[in-house]
Amino acid sequence: MSRWDPRVAIAAKRDGRTLDAEEVERFVAGVAVGEVSDAQAAAFLMAALLRGLDDGETLAMTRAMIASGDTVTLPDVGAPTVDKHSTGGVADGVTLLFAPMAAAVGLAVAKLSGRGLGHTGGTLDKLESIPGLRTDLHPDEMARQVAEVGCAVVAQSTRLVPADGALYALRDATATVPSIPLIAASVMSKKLAVRTDLILLDVKCGSGAFMRSERDARALASTCRGLAEGDGRRCGVAVTDMSQPLGVAIGNALDVAEAVDVLAGRTRGRLRDLAVFFVADAIVSLLAEPLDLARGRAEAVLDDGSALERFREMVAAQGGDPRVADDPWSVLPAAPVRRPVAVDAEGALAEVATATLGTIATSLGAGRLRKGDPIDPAVGIVLEIGIGDVVERGDVIGTVHARDEAAATAAADAVRRALTFAQPPVTAPPLVLDHLPAGSLTRG
Amino acid sequence: MSRWDPRVAIAAKRDGRTLDAEEVERFVAGVAVGEVSDAQAAAFLMAALLRGLDDGETLAMTRAMIASGDTVTLPDVGAPTVDKHSTGGVADGVTLLFAPMAAAVGLAVAKLSGRGLGHTGGTLDKLESIPGLRTDLHPDEMARQVAEVGCAVVAQSTRLVPADGALYALRDATATVPSIPLIAASVMSKKLAVRTDLILLDVKCGSGAFMRSERDARALASTCRGLAEGDGRRCGVAVTDMSQPLGVAIGNALDVAEAVDVLAGRTRGRLRDLAVFFVADAIVSLLAEPLDLARGRAEAVLDDGSALERFREMVAAQGGDPRVADDPWSVLPAAPVRRPVAVDAEGALAEVATATLGTIATSLGAGRLRKGDPIDPAVGIVLEIGIGDVVERGDVIGTVHARDEAAATAAADAVRRALTFAQPPVTAPPLVLDHLPAGSLTRG
Repeated sequence: MSRWDPRVAIAAKRDGRTLDAEEVERFVAGVAVGEVSDAQAAAFLMAALLRGLDDGETLAMTRAMIASGDTVTLPDVGAPTVDKHSTGGVADGVTLLFAPMAAAVGLAVAKLSGRGLGHTGGTLDKLESIPGLRTDLHPDEMARQVAEVGCAVVAQSTRLVPADGALYALRDATATVPSIPLIAASVMSKKLAVRTDLILLDVKCGSGAFMRSERDARALASTCRGLAEGDGRRCGVAVTDMSQPLGVAIGNALDVAEAVDVLAGRTRGRLRDLAVFFVADAIVSLLAEPLDLARGRAEAVLDDGSALERFREMVAAQGGDPRVADDPWSVLPAAPVRRPVAVDAEGALAEVATATLGTIATSLGAGRLRKGDPIDPAVGIVLEIGIGDVVERGDVIGTVHARDEAAATAAADAVRRALTFAQPPVTAPPLVLDHLPAGSLTRG
Repeated sequence: MSRWDPRVAIAAKRDGRTLDAEEVERFVAGVAVGEVSDAQAAAFLMAALLRGLDDGETLAMTRAMIASGDTVTLPDVGAPTVDKHSTGGVADGVTLLFAPMAAAVGLAVAKLSGRGLGHTGGTLDKLESIPGLRTDLHPDEMARQVAEVGCAVVAQSTRLVPADGALYALRDATATVPSIPLIAASVMSKKLAVRTDLILLDVKCGSGAFMRSERDARALASTCRGLAEGDGRRCGVAVTDMSQPLGVAIGNALDVAEAVDVLAGRTRGRLRDLAVFFVADAIVSLLAEPLDLARGRAEAVLDDGSALERFREMVAAQGGDPRVADDPWSVLPAAPVRRPVAVDAEGALAEVATATLGTIATSLGAGRLRKGDPIDPAVGIVLEIGIGDVVERGDVIGTVHARDEAAATAAADAVRRALTFAQPPVTAPPLVLDHLPAGSLTRG
């Protein structure tokens, strides 16, 4: 009868008691090795969602999740290392820009990415729309590439935080996803398992993000940063607007083409602004430069072509066709049907059903409904207007890229319905709602 | 995408919404057919435990559990039918008395019983300590016996409320047992699935019961009665004391022998008093006699031997050796070691660790730790004193019946430690703490 009984921890959380670190770690380790049943884990997750987990419990859970698998330490690549992660939104292609930009300013980025269930494919899927490009690099290969090029974007090993995959699947099945401590533990376990000098976290907020309210987004941001600091790591977090798509492209090849335009300095706008914001934040934190100079350097690597050059080198090093950097559509797969979307309203764009745009992209084939589903790299949506922009009836505001005419028609109609226009003027929301830069560390 | 998704109900309960009957029934039906995973059921149970289920939700759950299996309707046996159930305690042998006593006053009892995990075996196990006695009667056989003898105690079919077995196993594994609505649904689903004219429910309260506080016991009693009325059934409930063992015997054959002594009118005390209480309650409710006359009739069938005669007939009808009614120990299995327990304290018995006495009986072999474990019918404890009784050091207050000397020594020591004595006088607690007799029905 002296065998460890997982029901003791479940009952304690059920009754609102704060568990000590050992109890949490023992439970999560039990989940990882199958000693705790799915039903027991689900009961614990629901109790944790309803009773809450405090900072200490959440940190213990995060550490136990990390301990369920391997951790990654980059060999010395001669530069400070930085990892940038977004909680996910629509047309959020910042990572495609951040890695080569950070490399161009003298930082090193080894980005390990999962294959999510987002509205479009994840960063890996977007990159893989470049013919030949591989993301399944061996750790040694990745380290060599980071040392040479300054950046790599690589599929994370299934040995990285396996407990997260198991717990996430269970949370998804049992309606226990929307818990800030559980989300924070899931996000940060994967970031903390990779030993970089700095973590930058972009918590998305608004109609296209999981966090719809600014209050929840701020709470998640603060919890995530606390977990990093509790684990002795530097972490900067920002809460940024996702009440409209960040870039213009919602797809995979479409996003790569947009990224190239931004990297080449040809395109301004919110996507560029946010990439500059995070690269500047990394420079301030890791190279101790003042913010105005840091911003200037981040802008400069876009305007002088050096970030695009790093992107070209990264693509080439990973086996992709480097001509994508010069003329994206000479190598990227294009959709057979391109349907312009004309508005049937007038006024200022006031509201965007951003998640719906994501769902439309998924139904075109750009995203996955189930893990392992194939995605169609060519299809998606381009939306050229943002909140506050004024249109007249009949104006073309974007393009649907589809596999066939029927899909294009349905998607174009749905896009129109996802946009709400109002009497001008309408003010565009700020891009960055909150920012907690990385502090200096007391340890680690 | 229009497939029914169990996560909708889980999320609603998680968020504190009251589900409508259809949602609850759909979910429980999904559990019963395996369409809802154990993890999903566990998350729902934890959410229900923490957010609560109101009367409508609990009734819907109970009905859905009943609908998961067969229901039992007795053919007309020429007498009103009554079912009496206890939520479980230590030395609670009332059912062994109630069935023949009710038969002797002209009522009919077809008691379907499960094989629980109590401190001792359940009613079935106790009866099966009588050589030859069978409890696996076919429904027709049971009906015939009830028509002829007036009573039968039978193992319930696994087709009776199968969802309860599945849900209970899950609750036990996931620390979701202590929820009054869930307990009430479990208890009442099995009672309501058997179509009798009256249900009498004994909710035990105190150190030997699952409900330790009177507040919880009253809440459970009231919820159970509400479920019966909601289902159009008459139901009387009492909250009764379990701060000490009800009878003197804690075992299986020992309980049968004690029951025979009470049925023969030889033994007075709490066990007899409670059996009389419930039989009188049944007479009042089903035969519309005034309470004082009803009590007199219940006492009379003990004192005139007619209840013992029904017991003898029931045992014989079920294949058991009827001589048990005349001289129990001529047929019951006796333990090889009988160890008197002498107290090493003096004063009035003030407190009994009643559940501990049950655990001691289990460790002697009288009860089950796991479903399907064998039990030893011969072993157990006899405790001759009750709260308020005054002893002197060295007085023999009971006997341990054990398989060997070592077990007897350990059990005798443990029994002594389970009793707390104080300066007299100590007042004995009342036997019946609350009583809600069956009302007349508005429907059904």
